Amino acid sequence: MSEVIAAVEGGGTNFNCALFDLEGRLLVRQRFATAKPKATIEQCAAFIKQSRRGSRIIGAGLACFGPLDLRRGSSSYGAILATPKPGWESFKPKASLEDALEVPVSLTTDVGGSALGEHHAGVARNTEDFVYITVGTGIGVAAFLGGRLLEGASHPELGHCSVRRVAGDSFLGNCPFHGDCVSGLASGPAIEARWGKRGEELPPEHRAWDFESAYLAQLCTTAIYAYAPQAVVLGGGVMAAPGLLDRIKIKLGKLLGAYHDTFVVDAAGAPRVVAPGLGGDSALYGAFALARSELER
Amino acid sequence: MSEVIAAVEGGGTNFNCALFDLEGRLLVRQRFATAKPKATIEQCAAFIKQSRRGSRIIGAGLACFGPLDLRRGSSSYGAILATPKPGWESFKPKASLEDALEVPVSLTTDVGGSALGEHHAGVARNTEDFVYITVGTGIGVAAFLGGRLLEGASHPELGHCSVRRVAGDSFLGNCPFHGDCVSGLASGPAIEARWGKRGEELPPEHRAWDFESAYLAQLCTTAIYAYAPQAVVLGGGVMAAPGLLDRIKIKLGKLLGAYHDTFVVDAAGAPRVVAPGLGGDSALYGAFALARSELER
Repeated sequence: MSEVIAAVEGGGTNFNCALFDLEGRLLVRQRFATAKPKATIEQCAAFIKQSRRGSRIIGAGLACFGPLDLRRGSSSYGAILATPKPGWESFKPKASLEDALEVPVSLTTDVGGSALGEHHAGVARNTEDFVYITVGTGIGVAAFLGGRLLEGASHPELGHCSVRRVAGDSFLGNCPFHGDCVSGLASGPAIEARWGKRGEELPPEHRAWDFESAYLAQLCTTAIYAYAPQAVVLGGGVMAAPGLLDRIKIKLGKLLGAYHDTFVVDAAGAPRVVAPGLGGDSALYGAFALARSELER
Repeated sequence: MSEVIAAVEGGGTNFNCALFDLEGRLLVRQRFATAKPKATIEQCAAFIKQSRRGSRIIGAGLACFGPLDLRRGSSSYGAILATPKPGWESFKPKASLEDALEVPVSLTTDVGGSALGEHHAGVARNTEDFVYITVGTGIGVAAFLGGRLLEGASHPELGHCSVRRVAGDSFLGNCPFHGDCVSGLASGPAIEARWGKRGEELPPEHRAWDFESAYLAQLCTTAIYAYAPQAVVLGGGVMAAPGLLDRIKIKLGKLLGAYHDTFVVDAAGAPRVVAPGLGGDSALYGAFALARSELER
């Protein structure tokens, strides 16, 4: 009987599910809109079970939106903490998926999963120290350092750090916790709230991208000072905007100043800031990689 | 023949030297003013060698000011990088101390040494995830996570992150690299440059401490989001100001908002931000602890 591993990326908008063989080949996948917590998990589990055919599911990985309680020994370990998403606060997606699949489930954040995926099969395959930043519904930051995901007492929340206002930006910010932290100024919903249009509808010459590149360059700078990585991977829906990555790199070079050389530069002396190699599938591959590595232990 | 370990804390103003026995007892110590690089190291080595009496020096630890090149495999590993301190740029203090003492020298940053010292024998003895921040001639941040010092491709430089200006502060900042980063606004020399007096001369009710506590609370917030620690240890000469630690804690609680509970809170729900247990000797003890642990390996 062949063995397979399930992978779930739990996002605020969609849940992506897949089965992988033990060599890391994606066998089957499906996407469900994020609904009520228990129903969403059960829909994923039903798909996974019906797709396994003759194979045995030996474990699963879950890369889930948060904030998550990842404090070791916490009584609410694995629970979703303060979230504006109705019904999800205090829900335990890992425990729920374990009940439904009856296998051990390895848990990390969505952005932690993306970092693991990019290290496993993406652009950071040979990089032991890098930062993954996702810019989408929110802004998440994961640090992969010395070959493992950084988790202190819990996971980082650098996507809520403060940035300096760009002159002329009077938008109040839309982070429910901090107002104008970097998530409140530069996430997808922040762009839409500020300009009345989604990022996809704003042309490359729109002022929105001056603001966006300035705030994300500041976030990259803070992440570089915090983690001293060899590279920064910038993913998420907002990063699909044409030219945005290059504009961030130019501003980042200026912000780093003389500290530039110490950190992330490529052979041409430019900051090593790159797009993900797995596109929107980083977290799904990461959930698989996490489950496999924990099963091997 | 008994065995001893040498420890050196290399600071911009003074070099502190000591000999420890293998159980971690400080046997003898001396302080020298920081002069030219080679002469300073030789003065330390001469003191160490004449103080060992009949004992054999089996290794040494050096916690040195920076920025240091700690990139694994770098041809300039151990060198001091861009520094405004005359004569010290490109100097390799570890190699120089190894030549003088003829034993292996383990190297970390001054603030990394302080974190190791506080974990070894100070206030963080039972804490596996904490941040050490020193506020003195510069501002340094070290992250001790999962039982070891965080070093990505090199050491963190979060003391150069940006902070938002407090209303009414028009000081340009004095960081030679970034102007008004947190080091340029809140280090000891920044206080002196802004007010024309050293921090020690400014009374607790002086406006300087409003600014100082606001900037350091922002730095603590960024460090907490970056590392998710269980505690923050705040040391360095500037932190000796009466009441400063408490004022930072109050502002930090407000800045963290609803994210407060996830991170560093004590039993009373206040942020776990504490003074070092070893006072000004954290880095000296840390240099010893580093050398001993590397010798044991």
